[in-house]
Amino acid sequence: MPSVFTRIINSEIPAYKVAENDEYLAFLDISPVAKGHTLVVPKKEVDYLFDLDDETYLGLQAFAKRVAIGLKKAIPCRKVGVAVLGLEVPHAHIHLIPMQSESDLLNFGKKLRLTPEEFEEIRETIAAHISRR
Amino acid sequence: MPSVFTRIINSEIPAYKVAENDEYLAFLDISPVAKGHTLVVPKKEVDYLFDLDDETYLGLQAFAKRVAIGLKKAIPCRKVGVAVLGLEVPHAHIHLIPMQSESDLLNFGKKLRLTPEEFEEIRETIAAHISRR
Repeated sequence: MPSVFTRIINSEIPAYKVAENDEYLAFLDISPVAKGHTLVVPKKEVDYLFDLDDETYLGLQAFAKRVAIGLKKAIPCRKVGVAVLGLEVPHAHIHLIPMQSESDLLNFGKKLRLTPEEFEEIRETIAAHISRR
Repeated sequence: MPSVFTRIINSEIPAYKVAENDEYLAFLDISPVAKGHTLVVPKKEVDYLFDLDDETYLGLQAFAKRVAIGLKKAIPCRKVGVAVLGLEVPHAHIHLIPMQSESDLLNFGKKLRLTPEEFEEIRETIAAHISRR
């Protein structure tokens, strides 16, 4: 069965997409730990980040950097933090989280609740700040 | 003043080093959240991960992958998780954390206490499993 992220990639499930190219997709985490919490995934469905072939892995990290730079411009924060957990959804994904404090990254037990309108507004703001290179 | 990581790189402060080349260093976190918790840093002192130039950034990510693959062979775990927080030490660093559960990565408030002998044993085991490529 395809992962939930593959179904998002294939537009079978809706998502707030902020950046996309042929190989990678970035979209808002629907259970954000902070405003602007974004997931970056390879379109290739591989469970474990470090099982990705070098080319796909480095392409993903380069894409994540571009998204993170846009995210920091779009959402006021001290830094964009990174987390890769990956024990729940078997499709490698990088969390990018705008941080005011280190606990912003670590509060996975404490999720924000946002309306669809708030998600869409955040999505538009981030998407507008990501370079198209 | 040089960062604590630059002082480790320059061997002014001791550390349990697990892998090193001209540009990058991996060493055990002295306040580990799990056994085998490793930090990966560029020798170039730059505060924020996403401010690294593309070449240094991608080289760091490639080095981190090599360390993570060795770490997973050395320390029994489900996956090696990744965290970049970076609000305390102003020198970009990637946490690599062997995980049995997602909470292993997120328990930054709950540190393990290990003896120097335990650190050295873990260091040797990890170093022996990292490919030299």
